[in-house]
Amino acid sequence: MKKKSNYEEIRIIGLRGIPIIKEGDDIGKIICDAAKEQHIDIEDGDIIVIASKIVSKAEGRLIHLDTVTPSTFALRVAELTGKDPRLVELILQESNKIVKMKGRHLIMETRHGFVCANAGIDRSNVKGEKEIVSLLPKDPDASARKIMERIGELTGKKVAIIISDTFGRAWRRGHVNFAIGIAGMKPIKEYIGRSDMFGYTLRVTQMAVADELAAAAELAMGKADGIPVVIIKGYDYPKGEGTTQELIYPEEKDLFR
Amino acid sequence: MKKKSNYEEIRIIGLRGIPIIKEGDDIGKIICDAAKEQHIDIEDGDIIVIASKIVSKAEGRLIHLDTVTPSTFALRVAELTGKDPRLVELILQESNKIVKMKGRHLIMETRHGFVCANAGIDRSNVKGEKEIVSLLPKDPDASARKIMERIGELTGKKVAIIISDTFGRAWRRGHVNFAIGIAGMKPIKEYIGRSDMFGYTLRVTQMAVADELAAAAELAMGKADGIPVVIIKGYDYPKGEGTTQELIYPEEKDLFR
Repeated sequence: MKKKSNYEEIRIIGLRGIPIIKEGDDIGKIICDAAKEQHIDIEDGDIIVIASKIVSKAEGRLIHLDTVTPSTFALRVAELTGKDPRLVELILQESNKIVKMKGRHLIMETRHGFVCANAGIDRSNVKGEKEIVSLLPKDPDASARKIMERIGELTGKKVAIIISDTFGRAWRRGHVNFAIGIAGMKPIKEYIGRSDMFGYTLRVTQMAVADELAAAAELAMGKADGIPVVIIKGYDYPKGEGTTQELIYPEEKDLFR
Repeated sequence: MKKKSNYEEIRIIGLRGIPIIKEGDDIGKIICDAAKEQHIDIEDGDIIVIASKIVSKAEGRLIHLDTVTPSTFALRVAELTGKDPRLVELILQESNKIVKMKGRHLIMETRHGFVCANAGIDRSNVKGEKEIVSLLPKDPDASARKIMERIGELTGKKVAIIISDTFGRAWRRGHVNFAIGIAGMKPIKEYIGRSDMFGYTLRVTQMAVADELAAAAELAMGKADGIPVVIIKGYDYPKGEGTTQELIYPEEKDLFR
């Protein structure tokens, strides 16, 4: 298929060759090196989507469960849910509240305000150690900004960064990737008051494009293939400095919290 | 940027030139014609994502509110929510239950089992008539299958079809597109028991890739730009005949219904 000028496309490119990330690693530089290796130019307007797991690792957000002493409440919740009490202690420490506790499930509101199972704490994928868990980055927007600035320094290009994580949803089976940190873009595209093609005024429609971009990127990540970074080209995202806090309803406006 | 052989990409192509759809229109043929016009080859393994609105129109799922007589209950709900009683009557007719009713909001479980505002009934985008609303397709999987078979007939190619609609989510601001009808693929990609790159067994992870594909396609649709069809190339989706029912939790397994 030859590209003709009369259509546009969005391209989702999985970046191969990202090494195992260790604490202190310079993710911005690692991304630039991997892109160069694959002859992928980083260009102005690219969106780089990064799995939160590697950001957590670089930021030393790994905890050995041996170092955790469960509280009385954590012991009780662990008993009721069948989870490791030390894991429950960490989940509670990382959370504002328990949104839903039922069977083995602990749906939490994290300190950032995200609603997800186990406060986003994850056991898999940490090399050689089943007793080590990874926490979500402490301030994923700040992590995204730092990586964006580093890539800007190294390439002279203005990109947007999305840090993504895999969450379940209410009412629908299966997980999808969501944006938990962003830099260099706004997370929501507004169609407020814009008239549609028949001249009406559309009702307010706010599309959570940061989440859609995170979901699109996941398609190129796979789960166990070691592609934690995806570059998206050709999408005209809402410019400006946004925060993922814009993706979180204030509690009084949330119908389900 | 030249394409080298050492990376793969997923391409999301918005299909321009889809005309205003009327009842009885042959959407499969219209898609093939528009693709040809733009020199886009429809190939085996493509995923074609179609906004549910045009499927509803082709299937005559437009209702003039004048033809609707609200029940006593619809009148009461209309009063409490500030909605048009005739619209509320249709919302109730299209639904299994009210999941949440608060302020102006009516979050419904549709007859298909989807949880969304107003049972997916939409007022905008119907030409010249503010009193006409569009209902979701009656059986979106069947609609998808029909379009898939028609495209197969016309091109000899085996594609997958996703019919998408724009829904809100619990806990997160902003709308994203979800899959409400599929054909030629399974909606969930399973990572069950697959070992990760360090030799562990990953916990069960089921990715709702049909929803991720619908979200990815929305990025190329925009809301008011008249691009109701998007072709996705280069994604290795789970083959087989699936249904969007697989994306819906049975109620007893749903933590939030």
